[in-house]
Amino acid sequence: MSRALNAENVLEAGGRLAAEAARFTSFGWMRGTSGNLSEVVTREPLRLAVTASGLDKGELAASDVAVVGPDGEPVEVGGIEPLVPSAEAGLHARVAALTGADAVVHVHALNAVVAGHHWPRGVLLRDVETLKGIGRLAHDDEVVIPVIANSQDMRELGDRFEAAYDPRTPAVIVADHGLYAWGPNLKRARHITECVEWLLAYKIATR
Amino acid sequence: MSRALNAENVLEAGGRLAAEAARFTSFGWMRGTSGNLSEVVTREPLRLAVTASGLDKGELAASDVAVVGPDGEPVEVGGIEPLVPSAEAGLHARVAALTGADAVVHVHALNAVVAGHHWPRGVLLRDVETLKGIGRLAHDDEVVIPVIANSQDMRELGDRFEAAYDPRTPAVIVADHGLYAWGPNLKRARHITECVEWLLAYKIATR
Amino acid sequence: MSRALNAENVLEAGGRLAAEAARFTSFGWMRGTSGNLSEVVTREPLRLAVTASGLDKGELAASDVAVVGPDGEPVEVGGIEPLVPSAEAGLHARVAALTGADAVVHVHALNAVVAGHHWPRGVLLRDVETLKGIGRLAHDDEVVIPVIANSQDMRELGDRFEAAYDPRTPAVIVADHGLYAWGPNLKRARHITECVEWLLAYKIATR
Amino acid sequence: MSRALNAENVLEAGGRLAAEAARFTSFGWMRGTSGNLSEVVTREPLRLAVTASGLDKGELAASDVAVVGPDGEPVEVGGIEPLVPSAEAGLHARVAALTGADAVVHVHALNAVVAGHHWPRGVLLRDVETLKGIGRLAHDDEVVIPVIANSQDMRELGDRFEAAYDPRTPAVIVADHGLYAWGPNLKRARHITECVEWLLAYKIATR
Repeated sequence: MSRALNAENVLEAGGRLAAEAARFTSFGWMRGTSGNLSEVVTREPLRLAVTASGLDKGELAASDVAVVGPDGEPVEVGGIEPLVPSAEAGLHARVAALTGADAVVHVHALNAVVAGHHWPRGVLLRDVETLKGIGRLAHDDEVVIPVIANSQDMRELGDRFEAAYDPRTPAVIVADHGLYAWGPNLKRARHITECVEWLLAYKIATR
Repeated sequence: MSRALNAENVLEAGGRLAAEAARFTSFGWMRGTSGNLSEVVTREPLRLAVTASGLDKGELAASDVAVVGPDGEPVEVGGIEPLVPSAEAGLHARVAALTGADAVVHVHALNAVVAGHHWPRGVLLRDVETLKGIGRLAHDDEVVIPVIANSQDMRELGDRFEAAYDPRTPAVIVADHGLYAWGPNLKRARHITECVEWLLAYKIATR
Repeated sequence: MSRALNAENVLEAGGRLAAEAARFTSFGWMRGTSGNLSEVVTREPLRLAVTASGLDKGELAASDVAVVGPDGEPVEVGGIEPLVPSAEAGLHARVAALTGADAVVHVHALNAVVAGHHWPRGVLLRDVETLKGIGRLAHDDEVVIPVIANSQDMRELGDRFEAAYDPRTPAVIVADHGLYAWGPNLKRARHITECVEWLLAYKIATR
Repeated sequence: MSRALNAENVLEAGGRLAAEAARFTSFGWMRGTSGNLSEVVTREPLRLAVTASGLDKGELAASDVAVVGPDGEPVEVGGIEPLVPSAEAGLHARVAALTGADAVVHVHALNAVVAGHHWPRGVLLRDVETLKGIGRLAHDDEVVIPVIANSQDMRELGDRFEAAYDPRTPAVIVADHGLYAWGPNLKRARHITECVEWLLAYKIATR
């Protein structure tokens, strides 16, 4: 990302995040005020626009966005009201830093949590066409969606993510919690999220 | 609530109740004319605005609202047509009085009735992130959604609710019937309802 | 019904049928061009407005309506294009004649066909609050949704319906086929259909 | 089809394909950018308008369409931007050529892939009314939805399709992949797709 860190770019990101959040809410993946989405605004230093905490994800405005740095800490941007970011913003930043992804999706999709329950050591997928939708092969490619233990400490959760991370697989399940997925932009992250959820639904339906 | 008991405030509440009811109807949680929502208008004396009985909950107008007192009895308010409140308004009032909640949601969410069937002595939940959405902890916190036997006598149902009530848990399942959830305002009650339903769906999916 | 049998009344009925059909289509209960809805226009002689055959039930216009008599035979009405009624119109007329209902709903709701498969001698329901939504009691009232064998002969199907009919129960499952439900008007028939479907979903989920 | 192969006709087809794709996306059958739809524009030579590759199927414009020949190869049409067709366009063309259908639907409907998993030698359906929706009989008619092995080679996949093809059955499941269905026009192909999916859901629910 070479965008400048200014109010215009943050609000543009906020508008995109709000639209995506409304979509995922319509799928039932952001019940209550759960989940959060982010976009990288600048890489050096790392700054992310992330949906603000505690709001209904189906009703966000472009301005319902917070800016955070690499540890999820709030960062001031002129012209942007300093909303409280989700505590999980720290994991978003960690995902963006480690994977190079410029968009990160975190949703409480039921199938992800159910799959994490059934396969706590990772969800093995292979020989399904939809794997192409997450950048893998439809045949003879063993794909494991990692499952990591939940934590309220984002540093601990980030370390678990880093230990489990396979650069070929753009998603991770946080056990008893939800799904993270990412991509080079928000639309691609949407498509990866949708495909992973479909694959997990299929895995559950055929267990 | 320090609002005055007048037509304007009742109709404002009615508009909010109608919008929430349409949302829950879209989820399939208010089939037929089932369920009802309420808001406290005044605390002393206790007066609630509650959705009128017998109407499609996806098509309510702001004026499709009744005003009731602590036993669910109709209360006249100038400028408000005296619609028939649901018989269940008595339980809404009881919930509001006992819990201090200013908004109460009652829906016939299928997962709530299925969970009540499987766990008639209460639905135990623990170690799920979404528990934070109902004000509990994501780890090591044993949460029980109480299940009480159904009754057509609101006094009896209210007594069962009172006996089962745990101030830490903002929801109760009425067996063979549906779900009650509540919060300090209608939006918070919505989010609690959504989280409880998600938790029950998860519990059922992993039993 | 004391309405005159004229184009205006038929088209008014057609508009209501179209709106209800769009609703049921959104629920997935009218896939393909399946199902049909009807309203009685006159009782003597018996004339029903019924959705025309072969059309997408989510896209009907008010004029996509046919008029039939007691055997489902087409009846000419001035100003109404003589569209082909569904073959099933004969059963609609039979239901209206026998039950006195002025509105009949027939949908291919999956849960109805699944329930008919599991309980081919009738689906027993009791002690569920939602039974009140179909005019029965929430406690100690044994309700059986009859299941009759499918047929392409509407006279045969009508005879089976008549043999199975219990005036207290406003719905019947046609095995391997779908659900019929009825009420004094289309909105009430909608609510009964919704409640029966919910009850069948609950029965299946707890078997 | 006797339409001329020109930009107007291709864009008209593109508009219809976009609308149908949005519908199927709303059903969850085109997650990510999966699936593709096509219409025959001319028969001699065989030319199909097919949804362009890599786009969200819920957001297509009329111009998001590619034109292909009998092997799925791109064909230039004046006034039409040469978008990349899906690799699967080759199978669409093969289906159109073999079956005579002028519209082909390919979706990643979960139930189709689950059914292919459970019944890898074909899904037997009989004695269900909804079979009439795909041109078969409601009674005593053994219908088999063929299941063919997946491949990335459209010629191989086409050969498997040809070997499995029964002219009476307008659909095929590609194992570990998705569903193909077809009809004389796009609306009919929609209805067949909906009915097949319903039938597979029913088969799975009663296994």
